[in-house]
Amino acid sequence: MQQEQIDHVLQQANAAFLTYKNIPAVQRASFLEAIAAGLDAAKPALVPVAMEESHLPEARLNGEVGRTSGQLRLFAALIREGSWVEAAIDTALPDRVPARPDIRKLLIPMGPVVVFGASNFPFAFSTAGGDTASALAAGCPVVIKGHPAHPQTSRRVFAIMEHAAVATGMPAHVVQHVEGGNAAGEALVKHPLTAAVGFTGSLQGGKALLQYASERKRNIPVFAEMSSVNPVVLLPDALQENAEQLAQTYAGSITLGMGQFCTNPGILLGIESEGLQRFSRTLGEAIAQVAPQPMLHEGICAAYAKGLQEKLLQPGINLLHAPADRKGKLDAQPAVVSVQADTFLQQPSLHEELFGPFSMLVVCKDKAQLLETLRALEGQLTTTVMATRKDLDAHADVLALQTSLAGRLVLNSVPTGVEVCAAMVHGGPFPATSDSRFTSVGSTAIRRWVRPFCFQGLPDELLPPALQNANPENILRLVDNVYTRDAIV
Amino acid sequence: MQQEQIDHVLQQANAAFLTYKNIPAVQRASFLEAIAAGLDAAKPALVPVAMEESHLPEARLNGEVGRTSGQLRLFAALIREGSWVEAAIDTALPDRVPARPDIRKLLIPMGPVVVFGASNFPFAFSTAGGDTASALAAGCPVVIKGHPAHPQTSRRVFAIMEHAAVATGMPAHVVQHVEGGNAAGEALVKHPLTAAVGFTGSLQGGKALLQYASERKRNIPVFAEMSSVNPVVLLPDALQENAEQLAQTYAGSITLGMGQFCTNPGILLGIESEGLQRFSRTLGEAIAQVAPQPMLHEGICAAYAKGLQEKLLQPGINLLHAPADRKGKLDAQPAVVSVQADTFLQQPSLHEELFGPFSMLVVCKDKAQLLETLRALEGQLTTTVMATRKDLDAHADVLALQTSLAGRLVLNSVPTGVEVCAAMVHGGPFPATSDSRFTSVGSTAIRRWVRPFCFQGLPDELLPPALQNANPENILRLVDNVYTRDAIV
Repeated sequence: MQQEQIDHVLQQANAAFLTYKNIPAVQRASFLEAIAAGLDAAKPALVPVAMEESHLPEARLNGEVGRTSGQLRLFAALIREGSWVEAAIDTALPDRVPARPDIRKLLIPMGPVVVFGASNFPFAFSTAGGDTASALAAGCPVVIKGHPAHPQTSRRVFAIMEHAAVATGMPAHVVQHVEGGNAAGEALVKHPLTAAVGFTGSLQGGKALLQYASERKRNIPVFAEMSSVNPVVLLPDALQENAEQLAQTYAGSITLGMGQFCTNPGILLGIESEGLQRFSRTLGEAIAQVAPQPMLHEGICAAYAKGLQEKLLQPGINLLHAPADRKGKLDAQPAVVSVQADTFLQQPSLHEELFGPFSMLVVCKDKAQLLETLRALEGQLTTTVMATRKDLDAHADVLALQTSLAGRLVLNSVPTGVEVCAAMVHGGPFPATSDSRFTSVGSTAIRRWVRPFCFQGLPDELLPPALQNANPENILRLVDNVYTRDAIV
Repeated sequence: MQQEQIDHVLQQANAAFLTYKNIPAVQRASFLEAIAAGLDAAKPALVPVAMEESHLPEARLNGEVGRTSGQLRLFAALIREGSWVEAAIDTALPDRVPARPDIRKLLIPMGPVVVFGASNFPFAFSTAGGDTASALAAGCPVVIKGHPAHPQTSRRVFAIMEHAAVATGMPAHVVQHVEGGNAAGEALVKHPLTAAVGFTGSLQGGKALLQYASERKRNIPVFAEMSSVNPVVLLPDALQENAEQLAQTYAGSITLGMGQFCTNPGILLGIESEGLQRFSRTLGEAIAQVAPQPMLHEGICAAYAKGLQEKLLQPGINLLHAPADRKGKLDAQPAVVSVQADTFLQQPSLHEELFGPFSMLVVCKDKAQLLETLRALEGQLTTTVMATRKDLDAHADVLALQTSLAGRLVLNSVPTGVEVCAAMVHGGPFPATSDSRFTSVGSTAIRRWVRPFCFQGLPDELLPPALQNANPENILRLVDNVYTRDAIV
């Protein structure tokens, strides 16, 4: 029954694809912009619903709607400009032996994309979030699996998307909305007409989707953004100069939004010193003053409480402050602990993410142990280094190791806060994501949903405009190995 | 024991990676060019060895060595030019609220790549072939799993690579050579330090590697190019005008190199007509005149003979010519058969590739059945259409369907012969490859081995040259959403 509904949805998505992929980019851009305008206009109505469902504060959700409409407009601008299709043209060489035919390539959409909404960003990583925006921009219809933690928010956002689709003349079913549990998710990933999958969530959830995908007859790409502890390296000179200020900054980053960000700094690494002791003391004091606040939903809150308990029961773990009193039943207790690197290295379970307002200070004996500890970590979305110029000069090896670990290296800031721009990488080696060659934030996120296609020997008028001699879209192209916007004459 | 050797090899590859990834691109380019020069110089000695092992003719192998050194030089030129790293820079906006940090992205190598040599191209898709050349260009050390069908050729090519590595000052173990059976292959794919895998071969072999990869703790990309029947659509007007000439052309393409190409035209599709009958008759006559020649090795020859027998025993299959006499024990019998589309649609086993000098003419009742038959096919590397201008105007729907089916669309030529250039796509939906977002031929083949990495807030002098303000490598970059080679001032 559920299975039949899912089949119907994918049949409709595939029918929409046959039309949608041929709609000119400027019209797809108008569609995205209409969704953006609809979200902005509905913000006063949407935010209270999302507050009720997610327990996130008003200011944060207002900002998130703006981020979401901004993302939609970024992808609209990208496809209006047009060079993202990576047009490459090798013109015929009839006199070469053997003769070279005319060969022209561009990126084309893959087909219906299934997007799983995330609980921690009810707007920006959910229904009309980055995965959906990038897939629609690419020319792929989207089947949205709404997150069960915010069903009303998801339905309302979807209604805005449907309205925008009609208003801008998009084909029926270019976006569809599915609600359901794990069985629906499994059926969506396994359906033969599903061309790709986007997911932001837990390691467990992401691994389940990868498993479903591996059971398919035909391989499809699954981009899952899953798990990251975002290690922060505190270098000695920076600690000596600024221990207290760094601690205040990190207390804020660790507890921002009750730590419910994939870039939350879950591990802090430093070398034993008087400065690190001051950092540790101040961090504990600062965290003790952060009031417990509600988490997204009961499941996440319970998982956090259980995970925190498990970490605290491990030998060698020291809580840096007195435990706070929880008031509401969804409240999370912010917590920072310290552990010696020797212990950390022996206990791989300590390396795992605890989603919530938690961080672990790993105290290394010396630089060699700091390097050893970094080497022991799994793939990450981000890694940060807090350093003076003197520190940087003395720790090139640390920075090199950090580069191999993650998708983004942050200097003297916090990993939380992911800018939406062309140069952003929100990705990284497993388990941060399922494929480190892609990002889920920023304009190149569109690459996940497209494949290169090559035309050999076609007459100019049968080629897509991006590949025609006249270059009617005035895009940047690689013509006979030269980047140019010039027409071919 | 085997396991320990593989572990040792990957440990060495990983140690090489730490040095190799930091070697400037111009030096990596010199290394690739030294391999190319070594191959060209050794051609007179290499080709007889490869002839002995592969039974391929001298002219073909001479050409293949040239293709191989040409590929190496193409990737050398790509990294000397440098823009392939896709540098993107979003400069800081300190006055924005919130302030935007400086964010800079480029592509970096992923780590040791395992390359499986292919039997059908002992040079161009094996030891120093396209997978290896693109991975080395990217900055990844390569562990080559030599193909057991041409061990001497592989060893000799590897010796040239090792010599080039020493001569150009590359780190020890930047290339390594492993021989062995399936167990070695499994251990290579499953080793924790393997960062990516490249494979060209059978569907069965590719699926085995994908299975091994799915059993890893950490996901890694496996690019497997596996199986394609490269459907050719013969449109009515073209047949009426040129049936005999088309048949001669295709007889040549089907039996070129005894059909041992991944782009061999294994399925021909046409609509019942007098022209198609002439095509069919002439094709049978032409194939009957092609002398059986040796295939690559006994395994492939036996598989071809068995597969051909199975196809011929299916009801509704008609051999278009008298069977030829085989002389040598490795000889393959070129064969073309015809089948009605009704039968073809009911027998999915007929859709599968038979590797060798074989093709199947599928006779459709009308255009609707032609479309139905195209829709029933799996993913392909290429698809071809033979058409007059009149045909093209009347068959836009056929061309649209072909685009969704494959990675390359060829008009009025043959799919065999894959140009090595920027616009080439040698890829396609499963089972043609494991990931249609990549190509294994042409300059963008390098993308398989790199991931984006983003630096946030780093001082100019600590950034890689590609991202420094002065743009010392004079590469094309996306700076604040504008493509430019200008320095940032």
